[in-house]
Amino acid sequence: MFRLMHGDKLWGGRFVGDTDPVMEKFNASISYDQRMWDADIRGSKAYVKALEKAELVTTEEMNSILQGMDQVSQEWSKGAFVIKPGDEDIHTANERRLKELIGVPAGKLHTGRSRNDQVVTDMRLWLRDAISVLTENTLQLVSTMVERAAVEIDVLFPGYTHMQRAQPIRWSHWILSGAIAGTPFDIDRELLRKELAFDDISLNSMDATGQRDFVAEFLFWASLCLTHLSKMAEDLMLYSTKEFSFLMLSDAYSTGSSLMPQKKNADSLELIRSKAGRVFGRCAGFMMTLKGLPSTYNKDLQEDKEAMFDCYDTVHAVLQVMAGVMSTLKINQSVMEAALSPDMLATDVAYYLVRKGVPFREAHGMSGKVVVMAESKQIPLNQLTVEDLSTISPLFESDVSSVWDYRSSVEQYSAPGGTAKSSVTAQVEQLRNWLAKKTSTLTSVPSHLFNFKQAA
Amino acid sequence: MFRLMHGDKLWGGRFVGDTDPVMEKFNASISYDQRMWDADIRGSKAYVKALEKAELVTTEEMNSILQGMDQVSQEWSKGAFVIKPGDEDIHTANERRLKELIGVPAGKLHTGRSRNDQVVTDMRLWLRDAISVLTENTLQLVSTMVERAAVEIDVLFPGYTHMQRAQPIRWSHWILSGAIAGTPFDIDRELLRKELAFDDISLNSMDATGQRDFVAEFLFWASLCLTHLSKMAEDLMLYSTKEFSFLMLSDAYSTGSSLMPQKKNADSLELIRSKAGRVFGRCAGFMMTLKGLPSTYNKDLQEDKEAMFDCYDTVHAVLQVMAGVMSTLKINQSVMEAALSPDMLATDVAYYLVRKGVPFREAHGMSGKVVVMAESKQIPLNQLTVEDLSTISPLFESDVSSVWDYRSSVEQYSAPGGTAKSSVTAQVEQLRNWLAKKTSTLTSVPSHLFNFKQAA
Amino acid sequence: MFRLMHGDKLWGGRFVGDTDPVMEKFNASISYDQRMWDADIRGSKAYVKALEKAELVTTEEMNSILQGMDQVSQEWSKGAFVIKPGDEDIHTANERRLKELIGVPAGKLHTGRSRNDQVVTDMRLWLRDAISVLTENTLQLVSTMVERAAVEIDVLFPGYTHMQRAQPIRWSHWILSGAIAGTPFDIDRELLRKELAFDDISLNSMDATGQRDFVAEFLFWASLCLTHLSKMAEDLMLYSTKEFSFLMLSDAYSTGSSLMPQKKNADSLELIRSKAGRVFGRCAGFMMTLKGLPSTYNKDLQEDKEAMFDCYDTVHAVLQVMAGVMSTLKINQSVMEAALSPDMLATDVAYYLVRKGVPFREAHGMSGKVVVMAESKQIPLNQLTVEDLSTISPLFESDVSSVWDYRSSVEQYSAPGGTAKSSVTAQVEQLRNWLAKKTSTLTSVPSHLFNFKQAA
Amino acid sequence: MFRLMHGDKLWGGRFVGDTDPVMEKFNASISYDQRMWDADIRGSKAYVKALEKAELVTTEEMNSILQGMDQVSQEWSKGAFVIKPGDEDIHTANERRLKELIGVPAGKLHTGRSRNDQVVTDMRLWLRDAISVLTENTLQLVSTMVERAAVEIDVLFPGYTHMQRAQPIRWSHWILSGAIAGTPFDIDRELLRKELAFDDISLNSMDATGQRDFVAEFLFWASLCLTHLSKMAEDLMLYSTKEFSFLMLSDAYSTGSSLMPQKKNADSLELIRSKAGRVFGRCAGFMMTLKGLPSTYNKDLQEDKEAMFDCYDTVHAVLQVMAGVMSTLKINQSVMEAALSPDMLATDVAYYLVRKGVPFREAHGMSGKVVVMAESKQIPLNQLTVEDLSTISPLFESDVSSVWDYRSSVEQYSAPGGTAKSSVTAQVEQLRNWLAKKTSTLTSVPSHLFNFKQAA
Repeated sequence: MFRLMHGDKLWGGRFVGDTDPVMEKFNASISYDQRMWDADIRGSKAYVKALEKAELVTTEEMNSILQGMDQVSQEWSKGAFVIKPGDEDIHTANERRLKELIGVPAGKLHTGRSRNDQVVTDMRLWLRDAISVLTENTLQLVSTMVERAAVEIDVLFPGYTHMQRAQPIRWSHWILSGAIAGTPFDIDRELLRKELAFDDISLNSMDATGQRDFVAEFLFWASLCLTHLSKMAEDLMLYSTKEFSFLMLSDAYSTGSSLMPQKKNADSLELIRSKAGRVFGRCAGFMMTLKGLPSTYNKDLQEDKEAMFDCYDTVHAVLQVMAGVMSTLKINQSVMEAALSPDMLATDVAYYLVRKGVPFREAHGMSGKVVVMAESKQIPLNQLTVEDLSTISPLFESDVSSVWDYRSSVEQYSAPGGTAKSSVTAQVEQLRNWLAKKTSTLTSVPSHLFNFKQAA
Repeated sequence: MFRLMHGDKLWGGRFVGDTDPVMEKFNASISYDQRMWDADIRGSKAYVKALEKAELVTTEEMNSILQGMDQVSQEWSKGAFVIKPGDEDIHTANERRLKELIGVPAGKLHTGRSRNDQVVTDMRLWLRDAISVLTENTLQLVSTMVERAAVEIDVLFPGYTHMQRAQPIRWSHWILSGAIAGTPFDIDRELLRKELAFDDISLNSMDATGQRDFVAEFLFWASLCLTHLSKMAEDLMLYSTKEFSFLMLSDAYSTGSSLMPQKKNADSLELIRSKAGRVFGRCAGFMMTLKGLPSTYNKDLQEDKEAMFDCYDTVHAVLQVMAGVMSTLKINQSVMEAALSPDMLATDVAYYLVRKGVPFREAHGMSGKVVVMAESKQIPLNQLTVEDLSTISPLFESDVSSVWDYRSSVEQYSAPGGTAKSSVTAQVEQLRNWLAKKTSTLTSVPSHLFNFKQAA
Repeated sequence: MFRLMHGDKLWGGRFVGDTDPVMEKFNASISYDQRMWDADIRGSKAYVKALEKAELVTTEEMNSILQGMDQVSQEWSKGAFVIKPGDEDIHTANERRLKELIGVPAGKLHTGRSRNDQVVTDMRLWLRDAISVLTENTLQLVSTMVERAAVEIDVLFPGYTHMQRAQPIRWSHWILSGAIAGTPFDIDRELLRKELAFDDISLNSMDATGQRDFVAEFLFWASLCLTHLSKMAEDLMLYSTKEFSFLMLSDAYSTGSSLMPQKKNADSLELIRSKAGRVFGRCAGFMMTLKGLPSTYNKDLQEDKEAMFDCYDTVHAVLQVMAGVMSTLKINQSVMEAALSPDMLATDVAYYLVRKGVPFREAHGMSGKVVVMAESKQIPLNQLTVEDLSTISPLFESDVSSVWDYRSSVEQYSAPGGTAKSSVTAQVEQLRNWLAKKTSTLTSVPSHLFNFKQAA
Repeated sequence: MFRLMHGDKLWGGRFVGDTDPVMEKFNASISYDQRMWDADIRGSKAYVKALEKAELVTTEEMNSILQGMDQVSQEWSKGAFVIKPGDEDIHTANERRLKELIGVPAGKLHTGRSRNDQVVTDMRLWLRDAISVLTENTLQLVSTMVERAAVEIDVLFPGYTHMQRAQPIRWSHWILSGAIAGTPFDIDRELLRKELAFDDISLNSMDATGQRDFVAEFLFWASLCLTHLSKMAEDLMLYSTKEFSFLMLSDAYSTGSSLMPQKKNADSLELIRSKAGRVFGRCAGFMMTLKGLPSTYNKDLQEDKEAMFDCYDTVHAVLQVMAGVMSTLKINQSVMEAALSPDMLATDVAYYLVRKGVPFREAHGMSGKVVVMAESKQIPLNQLTVEDLSTISPLFESDVSSVWDYRSSVEQYSAPGGTAKSSVTAQVEQLRNWLAKKTSTLTSVPSHLFNFKQAA
């Protein structure tokens, strides 16, 4: 039963001791920031070397601290590190443990740096590694798509705009449009890598600890990346409906229904589609938290870490699952090609007339009339006779028959970026080269970044 | 070292087995939806009774299921329930355990319901309890504020608009403006309570499983509630700056600096301010996830649960911490009253003239001239002589001296909602009555809702 | 050519006069808040009556102000009101014009109220009318859907979950699931109506001018309403793809392609789907603006009006267009029914076994085997012989043939909210009654709310 | 009076003609996309040259089109262009007018391009110019701040963290922390410039028309930029409260109160603070609109333009107003320096001990005791005697007096980015060089971009 507590204090109050345990929990970040244990130790090891150079610790003290920190690191690796009451964050926990191991010199480690510096340094180090992992995931996804595009280059199917069949395109052309949309993500890595290289120094000390642009930008790039994947997932779900039947997901990425035995749901794609919202929500929340804060450090900034971790975990999982989906799905070439219909060549009809000198706007109008005529006769466009067509324009001649070929239609689009075989092959080659270049520059990443508990 | 894997499959691919373990993790919700174990069991117990009434299970089978479910419930309560591989969600886990305990009849429990029904029912049951807890937290906070307002009713201080001193008001008036802003939250409880009473049935079965309005509305109410608390936190931080020095937080809600020994930071308030962003981010993310989904159930909806839990945890913690802050802070009455200055009575000067028949717009202009005159003479308003004032208007007479009293100024605002003592007392009484009424209707809540691991 | 200006001031500066014209524009709200001219005049007319009762204006002055205000109102109605420099907002503009018309007494109108009171009152009055209009729009949409559902009640088609065919349902059942999802919007009207009735007074004056919950709640309801419509639009687009071909939009709600003569794009539905984002963006932006503001009025709150207007305009247009789409689209009954396939009856197969005493989990498993058997024989479920089936369970007998009827399958779901004819008819009736009740309570709305320039 | 219309159609419906005028309005974008008239004409002029090269128009036709387009351009410049019914967007309007002017050849202009190409090209061209304007605005703001920092370099005041006084810093240090935070915005310009240079071609044609990353990224950068400015505005508002009294805004950026004659509100800063919400709302809305769209063009993308224009207008106004505020505000040096207090030197006390060999953690603890001792004696730190101090540590000697000097304290921070005079001067120089470099690369911008109607 509920009772409003009116105790000693005149206006009561839910808490009257020295420390409010709810506040303690509310304040502590150790439950999630322990993920940065490795970055924190690396940061402190670098810092103690600077202290020694500045003669604020002796060489002996430095060595003691370095060895102590290595031991702390081993405890974390083995899962042997024990978090104790009072360890409110990873920085406190590591320093507390160091003191237990090496005694007095541990107290010198914090000379001349604030926890705010330490937090921001740890986050940048952690994020640099995390981005390496995501880059690998992205490359793996792009690679899967590129190689698939290379193999299946001869499959045609309808290109859609507004969810309506538009023109015949190559299946590989669609695959590569997704692969390319995946790559903008990589831009941010270059940007952040530069920022994180640490051979540049912050121009202003107030700005350095008080801003979190690198987190906000990471959250936004994660959002944009997953927005692209949500669109790709939408396409794939559409294509795997019974009505489209263009492709079928592997069982490894589908689940059954608890009620309907015949169903195979594309849960993997639905989850991917949903994560764009989740990740952008993190970005939106963090931007709102930043809005109107006074300059320099405010505790509000503590929201940065959970958002960063959650977005990393989510993007990490999404990229792997999408690569799995793309490498294992089966396409149904005959259904895809059967979905091509002569009305998708209406633009080609207009171009036929343009090539005979008709201005495009007029040609477009005449082609529209061709479509209407076919509809009223209830036959496909390519069954209209030259006589039929010549009532619309005398320029239609027997060579119009050359228009009714999907493969030639597709081959017209041989400009760079187009859907002709040569053009799609060129895209495959460009992406293969890009992949080769990117892959060669990947650095190794602490393995624990691959093995954390999955939040997503 | 990174290697793009090109295995058996022509286009390689990261996964070639029967089940992708990343997908399995990505798909499973047991890590967070186990929080609904109690709701899931209550829901199933109710459902089996309906099955018995429909003669789809025998009375004996029903009793066996009910007893089995009670045993599962006890295992959860004691922390003895063991999650096993394959338990992808709480529903699967409970039914799997039931089968281990009672055998065959367990398989009848799912007759005629889909997991989607079950999820949505569990969430509504859980949220109903959760809202009860938040209501208690809200009442506790409002109660603290109301009683504090009652005790400190005689303290005056500047009211601010645009962060600028405006007019003298009572401190209790400020407190109650926060208490009132806290209450809109309660509205939603009535709404949801009605919705959750379950004696109304859904009008359309497709709508029932496919929409999540009750989650979206809860997330938005949480956001609006915390936006109010972020504003209250901002005021309190401002008032506790050295420059204002109107109040001092209890040590229980402050923390020291790792670098600057003299500092006492209002971390509690900064965290509260930050949480408005976090919670709204969850709302924004979920709305984005909902956008453009096809009707009925899609796996995207799985995002609902973590958002709901996180918002509950956050609001639960914030309300308790704010109640703690409000019950333990100390105000500095003399500083607050010293911050009142004669220029804050400029509106009273205008009203003095209005009472002598001057239209307000003119009186406002004359009062403005009084302010300018005092500024140019570099003296406070109340040191202007009647002679000085009569150069602005002959209506200024010796009775103008009555204007220069802060307490009388405040007492003018005796209309309902105003800052006069009688009016603030009336607000205290209204809120006390409202609290008494609300408190009497509180129902008891499963204790585990108070003891979960704190995410916030 | 660009030149950094370093003028008289040591550090230069872009502006050195008395008023910065950019700031003036930045500050003014007249360009959009003039839409509230009617509410502003009504509010002032009510206020002057209160002033007369309080003997702050004479009866004669009151009458003069009332008549003057009527004249101002007529000028606005006729489009004859001229905004002059210095009219920074609608309140200033109306009072300036009043003074031109009636002279001195106009200056008394503002006695004892602040512009902040006036703004908030005007917004509440305007929004009350606006919500009446949206309610009409909603009722019109629901009415269209209900009547259509009544007429087309005999059309069956596949129900989808996860974009996969699930079970046969009535087309009318789908229509009504949308109609119902539309109605939650209406709840807010009741809430706001109560709030706007003005016979309740604000409990606290600081809270009254400083909070904008009624705006935030309106923006969120608009968002949730359009999120529902975005889902309905997604379904309709899917159903109108060539692959589904379940329905065809009227030309009035489609547009052609500038390039492809054969295309007919569902622009209306795509625009509706997009507006959920737009409107929620307004809500998100306003919540972020509110976060962390100090209490009482801050100029930041000026963001409320454009957001409110834009959301009103957008929802107003969307509801009308959706009603148009729903009333004019043509369904293709034969295609819809041809999309039903025997595997959608797999749940019915399980139920057949449940009725013979098999626990549901087992029955579900057996039905799954039936599906697999049909797949391996490459025939539809209903072409399996009783012999085939009896290898899975001896309980399959010749009466299994009764399962293979879509219409009987649908008729099983006669519980309230189900897809049986009786059940859907009941939903139609409930909604008709609800519409009749709502329609009878609609009040008339100033016509200018129907005729403003459309922002959306 | 409301009447549900049930006309000819069985289910009634609000519209039964050929075109629904609401839909037409809903669909049209001319009311806002006319802002891109110049970009559209430039794009078409470039395109016709490519057509001529491809021999799809003759040289004569090309010249006719180019001259016609120049005439259309002049009509827009002079405000003489008349939008006619049927001009649904700027592209249609310009081509319609071209046809009126030059006849038949106008119809050839659209050969081989889709409206989607045209829209995306126009937007990129427009945004490139818009970003040039914003860059100028940014440079003007940074320049104002840098020069002000150079002039006022000797003013000290308290640095705050958590809104609490922390350590003495230079006022110029604060100014530059804002100036630096302003610059990240510039990064995006480089990115976009590269993207917009048009000598790179899109790698995939489907990706080119269907994605709007450049818009989403612009919206996010606008958001991050304004989030920084919202923080700067918050600081300035705080500093201009009566309680801080560190600075006073120019009248040009303040407004009076309609009720309280003595008030001077910092409306400019409140508006700036509010715009972070507005702009991010646009970003959030657009991201939500993008989520889950099928690939290639969908009409949903039409939301891109209003968002882009509104963010441009808002950032354009905010940067100018902030430059005005920063160039005209007056600081109150004596109040700022009087706000420094000896407890802000507690860290210096710890460093004094560190220099005598005490590990920092211990020194921090001792300094904390010094603070407590001063508090209990109710005297400032610097009035503690050496005897007092030596009870805490024998290392305190008479040279401790050197600690109590704010200016020497500040001078300790001479590392790059610090608050020492030399360090702040170096920051001024770096920014001056950066400005000089940036200014020299600015290109001229079509003047109409400075003169549009202000939406913000």
